[in-house]
Amino acid sequence: MGFQVTIVGSSGAVPAFGRHPSCQFVQVQNRCLLLDCGEAAQMQLNAYQLPLHKINHIFISHLHGDHYLGLMGLLFTMHLQKRTAELHLYSPRGLDEIIVQQLKHSNSALHFNIDYTAFRTDTPQCLLDDEAITVTTIPLRHKLPTAGFLISEKTKPLRIDKNQLMPGMKLQHIAQLKQGSDVVDEGKTLYRAADFTLPPRPSYTYAYCSDTAFAEEVVAQVQGADLLYHEATFRETDREKAGETLHSTAQQAAEVAKRAHVKKLIIGHFSARYRELDGLLAEAKDIFPETLLATEGRTFDLDAHDS
Amino acid sequence: MGFQVTIVGSSGAVPAFGRHPSCQFVQVQNRCLLLDCGEAAQMQLNAYQLPLHKINHIFISHLHGDHYLGLMGLLFTMHLQKRTAELHLYSPRGLDEIIVQQLKHSNSALHFNIDYTAFRTDTPQCLLDDEAITVTTIPLRHKLPTAGFLISEKTKPLRIDKNQLMPGMKLQHIAQLKQGSDVVDEGKTLYRAADFTLPPRPSYTYAYCSDTAFAEEVVAQVQGADLLYHEATFRETDREKAGETLHSTAQQAAEVAKRAHVKKLIIGHFSARYRELDGLLAEAKDIFPETLLATEGRTFDLDAHDS
Repeated sequence: MGFQVTIVGSSGAVPAFGRHPSCQFVQVQNRCLLLDCGEAAQMQLNAYQLPLHKINHIFISHLHGDHYLGLMGLLFTMHLQKRTAELHLYSPRGLDEIIVQQLKHSNSALHFNIDYTAFRTDTPQCLLDDEAITVTTIPLRHKLPTAGFLISEKTKPLRIDKNQLMPGMKLQHIAQLKQGSDVVDEGKTLYRAADFTLPPRPSYTYAYCSDTAFAEEVVAQVQGADLLYHEATFRETDREKAGETLHSTAQQAAEVAKRAHVKKLIIGHFSARYRELDGLLAEAKDIFPETLLATEGRTFDLDAHDS
Repeated sequence: MGFQVTIVGSSGAVPAFGRHPSCQFVQVQNRCLLLDCGEAAQMQLNAYQLPLHKINHIFISHLHGDHYLGLMGLLFTMHLQKRTAELHLYSPRGLDEIIVQQLKHSNSALHFNIDYTAFRTDTPQCLLDDEAITVTTIPLRHKLPTAGFLISEKTKPLRIDKNQLMPGMKLQHIAQLKQGSDVVDEGKTLYRAADFTLPPRPSYTYAYCSDTAFAEEVVAQVQGADLLYHEATFRETDREKAGETLHSTAQQAAEVAKRAHVKKLIIGHFSARYRELDGLLAEAKDIFPETLLATEGRTFDLDAHDS
């Protein structure tokens, strides 16, 4: 179980001050997802002892180099480590051409299959929908077709209240109760699910907004998220630069968080012009106090307070 | 002046134990060259405070990912840092297609020109020949078309012997003497170049052999080099693996150094199977005592003992 986001890279387009380009490792109920894959992602995954062989889904927000240039190296390493499990890859269209061309020039065929989905970026699109989570695109406003990703847990199962269990109850009946079904055993005793179960643990939502100008439609789509990552490339003094490059200031990121009533905000994608990040953090906190910095190696637990 | 080789990356195909893929930064008489450009090269150049903006020539030995995947990131960073100086790029053919395709997908046009040379790998080819150095390919035996690079300093200028200079000698005459020409001044005095100059400082040769099986023709071409870098991916216990993958063992690298009568050997391109490198070093030193490890961040001075 669990829902954790680890920052692998926090830098803007030009890496600086030991920061690396965008990449996040998300563990959600035993699934491992990668959000963007900037250069050196594989080395940083190693450095933080994150299990790169367990990654089964990689989501690339757009085709600026700082968001995908670590992908080929990661694929080659998976290949050389004899991966055979299928890998699911999602991006705006074009990434398949980039991969195929580089495989051709290195005269390589991967040991594993890549199931590639090219997504549109003009409207939200569900990319993944399994028994526990969904992942949906968040169309963003940037120079290239770009989308963020909304990762939502579905309603979780009821939990058996162990204090209520009685000696002699059969495992198959307990399983039925956990599904929410009442049970009558051979002795005609009625067990009501409501008496033997506790409500499900809460379900959480994480919204990842990689590169974007401030956008009302993003506010709408990330409404009520438990955790929002929003890029904050610039400080207020560089707001004009943010406008030109279709990036956000820390204040704008905080404005999105505030209007969307999210619980917590992480800011990242820091410009190489800032050695110290305290100024960015302070500007965001002025507007949205529950703001945190995307510090590399830091893990954010969405269900940290669940029993 | 000076001739220095700094190890930026020392790892084989799979980066491990904090080691990074192949990359070396060579400073030779105010020229800055890059030999291979594995993933994360730009971050490691930053980490070692090597001036990436001064690089004017990049030589890529072959198109396996661990030798070029840092290139696009480096180019984008040069672009974002407003580089305008032309960049000279050399590789076996195909790299231009990889670059052009990725620029297309990121909708970018670089601020600077790339002068690209695709070289053959079946015979030595001179890639660079200016007033001070030559760079020639060293055809290697590997799974893809691959070449190393031989960087040779030309004969350096005579040096003026300041102890011999006399009061009243004209600067233009001193310059002529430095060129090796005798001079007659207006007073009809003959100054012989031989009396006023010292011999040139020594010229050095560095041979870089990236990925290769043991090859006699390499021995011939790197004969007498002052410094040889030769890959040593495997230990003797993995000699069979070296044969299959067309890589070398540390002993084979040392054998090349010994037969070629080079002065010093650096071994690198270490397999991810070895956490500790002492074993590789010991096996090479058994055959060629003047062997050193390609430790990342370490700089090798070819002219360290010149006055």
